[in-house]
Amino acid sequence: MNKRLLCHLVGNVVRVCGALMILPIIVSLIKRSGDTLPLLLSMLIALAVGTALALVQPRRDTLRAREGFAIVAFSWIIVSFLGGLPFFFSGHIPSLVDCFFETVSGFTTTGATILTDVEALPKGLLFWRSFTHWAGGMGVLVLSLALIPKMGARSIHLMRAESPGPSTDKLVPRVANNAKILYEIYVALSLFMVAALLFCGLDWYDSLTHMFGAAGTGGFGTYGDSIAHFNSAAVDIVVGIFMALFGVNFSIYYYLIHRNWRAAFGNSELRWYWIILLGVSAVVAVNIMPLYNGSFFTALRYSFFQASSIMTTTGYATADFDLWPQLSRVLLVMLMFIGASAGSTGGGIKVIRLQLLVKSMVRDIRRTVHPKSVNTVKLDGHTVDEGILSGVQGFFFAYILILLSAMVIVSLDGFSFETNFTAVLATLSNIGPGLGMVGPTGNFSAFSDLSKIVLSLCMLIGRLEVFPILMLFSPSAWKK
Amino acid sequence: MNKRLLCHLVGNVVRVCGALMILPIIVSLIKRSGDTLPLLLSMLIALAVGTALALVQPRRDTLRAREGFAIVAFSWIIVSFLGGLPFFFSGHIPSLVDCFFETVSGFTTTGATILTDVEALPKGLLFWRSFTHWAGGMGVLVLSLALIPKMGARSIHLMRAESPGPSTDKLVPRVANNAKILYEIYVALSLFMVAALLFCGLDWYDSLTHMFGAAGTGGFGTYGDSIAHFNSAAVDIVVGIFMALFGVNFSIYYYLIHRNWRAAFGNSELRWYWIILLGVSAVVAVNIMPLYNGSFFTALRYSFFQASSIMTTTGYATADFDLWPQLSRVLLVMLMFIGASAGSTGGGIKVIRLQLLVKSMVRDIRRTVHPKSVNTVKLDGHTVDEGILSGVQGFFFAYILILLSAMVIVSLDGFSFETNFTAVLATLSNIGPGLGMVGPTGNFSAFSDLSKIVLSLCMLIGRLEVFPILMLFSPSAWKK
Repeated sequence: MNKRLLCHLVGNVVRVCGALMILPIIVSLIKRSGDTLPLLLSMLIALAVGTALALVQPRRDTLRAREGFAIVAFSWIIVSFLGGLPFFFSGHIPSLVDCFFETVSGFTTTGATILTDVEALPKGLLFWRSFTHWAGGMGVLVLSLALIPKMGARSIHLMRAESPGPSTDKLVPRVANNAKILYEIYVALSLFMVAALLFCGLDWYDSLTHMFGAAGTGGFGTYGDSIAHFNSAAVDIVVGIFMALFGVNFSIYYYLIHRNWRAAFGNSELRWYWIILLGVSAVVAVNIMPLYNGSFFTALRYSFFQASSIMTTTGYATADFDLWPQLSRVLLVMLMFIGASAGSTGGGIKVIRLQLLVKSMVRDIRRTVHPKSVNTVKLDGHTVDEGILSGVQGFFFAYILILLSAMVIVSLDGFSFETNFTAVLATLSNIGPGLGMVGPTGNFSAFSDLSKIVLSLCMLIGRLEVFPILMLFSPSAWKK
Repeated sequence: MNKRLLCHLVGNVVRVCGALMILPIIVSLIKRSGDTLPLLLSMLIALAVGTALALVQPRRDTLRAREGFAIVAFSWIIVSFLGGLPFFFSGHIPSLVDCFFETVSGFTTTGATILTDVEALPKGLLFWRSFTHWAGGMGVLVLSLALIPKMGARSIHLMRAESPGPSTDKLVPRVANNAKILYEIYVALSLFMVAALLFCGLDWYDSLTHMFGAAGTGGFGTYGDSIAHFNSAAVDIVVGIFMALFGVNFSIYYYLIHRNWRAAFGNSELRWYWIILLGVSAVVAVNIMPLYNGSFFTALRYSFFQASSIMTTTGYATADFDLWPQLSRVLLVMLMFIGASAGSTGGGIKVIRLQLLVKSMVRDIRRTVHPKSVNTVKLDGHTVDEGILSGVQGFFFAYILILLSAMVIVSLDGFSFETNFTAVLATLSNIGPGLGMVGPTGNFSAFSDLSKIVLSLCMLIGRLEVFPILMLFSPSAWKK
């Protein structure tokens, strides 16, 4: 491991994070919310720490996969610690573990909160809290673009290397150009969403903060009852649709801009994504109709919003889905596993992995019938490399193993099975709310510090696609 | 599919099942329990149906893998239907769906029951109910010996083909000899257990019925409070240890008989099995100590019994573990996933699959560090074929997918998340009791007929190692 290079590059990321704190400072000044000082102090500390780390000059410039993963992992951890300082200095979150949990939840675009009364926070801090989602979303795009493809021949992102458009297999020199394209799409979609929310009658502050949460598929709101606060069908529809759009693979937008309709609409992940999302929305709508005076369309308004929010791993709520019938709750838990599309800002196992897992299973069944047959798995007309299939299957096992192992530790706190299971799943898949105590009207404050640290780790593991974090615990990664 | 051969061979299995009903008839005559008539009537029907099916003469003798799987699957289903008739004719279980559920639970060695008062049944019926476990256990041994290795190059059972001793890769002509060896071990262990229980003071009826449940790793008892009824530390220890012994790969006993200590004790699955079983027993003992006046050894008596009962997928209980602290409950759920060893009568994912999955994961982490390295997975000194690894990973995904899909249907009944999750897991892993409503003091009677059929299917899917049942739904299996 090239530790000097690691320090140097992490330092640069930390400096950028410090510089970004100027935005909540400006907001706090405009809103006269009285939280300028803790934000300013945190900014200075972040800039100082970042500069100190950046001053370490690397002796060699070799950037291998392992350094790439370590940079991303450590950046996310340090930035979450420093980014949580404003909450600590302001006195609104007195525990440093809670500050870390809240900020790692922001930067990993999870949206799980330990706050029992979010509206008690001043506007500058709330702006910063939501903004971490948007910044985290940008980080995820770089990650999926530059680093994940470096994971040997094991990554699903390699799939798209064959397609035209933003190619993701060559880090240098195309990465800068590709990152620029993805960022332009991200910013453009964000601006469209702000415009739509302003049009719905929200002020600039609410529009911006709630766009941050949707664009990063995070889910931090600024009101205790999330999007339900606005009590507006228009807002529900706008947020519901934009969440779904941010859960789409960003290459699709690239194809659309270049009028490559065939590549855009021929993409099977996109098709599966919408079929699952709309299918679950419809079934849940029928299931919850009795709660909405038997009106299918009112039920659909709430079911589509919630399915979109959970599947894209955002976590906004317009209804307390914890009170919905069991069928709807279990279907939402299914969506928590699946997650959004690869190459989006969303988390979870991802639709393309589900496709490959199902196709492999069908192949295994076929092999039971014809033991000697040689079958390949195809996706979008291309044969999928066996190494990629095995990587996806290994990813799935690691996901479930981490889920169950984290559940064992979290269960020490003595909460219900449902709470433990969905708390871990909702953090590992970067969603935010789960069921039971961590349902949409609940929060994570009652967990012990140990559980909060384990759940923070789950957010990081889920966000960094499991292996980069597990790698850090492998001694061989640290050998010279 | 050679349908005439299928009918012919299933008919023979059904005839054997009918002939076995002579045993509960003898018991009912000795005990004068008044249930001879329904048993006799069922026996005649089974013999008639079996003979009718066996009369279908196959035109060709070709027995391919697909016919093998279909024979096992249909035998299990038809035998479960006919084997449930005594309960129906006696009037003790008035619903045919319930009769089927109870008997499929018996033959798959699951032990999940719909009976709310088991002691209300006459002794002949209870003997038959327990005996289905023992017969099912024999069926499992044939299955693991003769059919699973036919699943192309995808089976974990092929692993042992390289070892000396009961080789499992060649169906003909060694299968008859190997089956004989396995049956001898099974019968010998069963007799030892009956002797031990008689020595503990149980009468012949209780000794036999409870041996049936332990040997088949089934778990049907004849008392409402399972093994707790005897209220004896000696019985707890005997049953606890024998359950653990029936969860060991039977080849180990073959090695021991032939004094091949190296092969027996060098087996890593055996090592993992005991480490997991004793490790969980110890942690649970510490966790439940406060419930037993702080006595570690009393706690260990209950924790070892329960860990052994759950891990071997038997399902007997000496304590209401549903009331234990969350940590213990979650650890027991972990054991429900893992299950016993391959080549035993136990169910679940199996220890050897867990080993291969963990080893693959470690390999994937290593690959993240060194993307270009070529690593093979080794087990007991042998390199594991990539096809087997991929088969095991595919098995794991199919297991979780079936678990979640079945949960969606079962959730229609509106019971709690915990009840639905563990009800499906406990049937899929052939355990019996779960948590919540299906905990050790509960039962499956409250579920709807639809759920009972889905859970019955889960028992069959789990028992037949997933793919043979899924195959039946594949159109290509039925083509000429």
